[in-house]
Amino acid sequence: MSASDATFQDLKRIIQACDRAITAEDFDTLMTYYADDATLVVKPGMHATGREQIRRAFVAIAEYFKHTMVVTQGEMKVIESGDTALVLMQTMLHTKGEDGEPVITERRATYVFRQAPAGNWLCAIDNSYGTDLIDAD
Amino acid sequence: MSASDATFQDLKRIIQACDRAITAEDFDTLMTYYADDATLVVKPGMHATGREQIRRAFVAIAEYFKHTMVVTQGEMKVIESGDTALVLMQTMLHTKGEDGEPVITERRATYVFRQAPAGNWLCAIDNSYGTDLIDAD
Repeated sequence: MSASDATFQDLKRIIQACDRAITAEDFDTLMTYYADDATLVVKPGMHATGREQIRRAFVAIAEYFKHTMVVTQGEMKVIESGDTALVLMQTMLHTKGEDGEPVITERRATYVFRQAPAGNWLCAIDNSYGTDLIDAD
Repeated sequence: MSASDATFQDLKRIIQACDRAITAEDFDTLMTYYADDATLVVKPGMHATGREQIRRAFVAIAEYFKHTMVVTQGEMKVIESGDTALVLMQTMLHTKGEDGEPVITERRATYVFRQAPAGNWLCAIDNSYGTDLIDAD
């Protein structure tokens, strides 16, 4: 058995909404999809925990990329266990390099979602680096 | 912030105990580390859910490898969010090929653990294929 179609479609819709919010730098909307105690891997070895830290990290990331970052998604797989789901996702970061030329960075992300009592899924762990983190110090 | 040292050491000890149980084919002990509603990715596209299905899958895997499988671990990273933890782990499967020669398969696994009310961590999602699942049909 794989994740139910309903869960798969729910999570796909949520992640697309998050990507639109990141691209629009609408961090108020973005934060509604994170759990209170969520953890974001900002970069290898640097984690942000809780909505306040995560919001500040997204502001800093947007500034770092000079407000040119667009996030798009490729293939997605979901593994479900009760109120917990692991999402494996091909993620493309479209940014601009120093010379203004477009740069596309592909990542293979791992996200953990938990279903809140009201039924909505919230992101608990956002690790866009996936298993590449194993190689980091 | 990374996972607390206590959580990291707890999860490392649990995963080592699971590997010893798999090697010894002690599936009763192994099942005590899985949540009631846990999901195991048996192979791409095939999931086992719940302890009964997972136990049967491990019996079948042991038979498939003619009772020669030994599991060992390499580098491990943990990302924690409240009672949920994502483990990224280098895993080596030591088996014997058709000709009796040793075969080592390296995987980059993703495990999701949840902390039970009593404080112990239980495996909710066991996906030894990691983000390689993205490429599977």
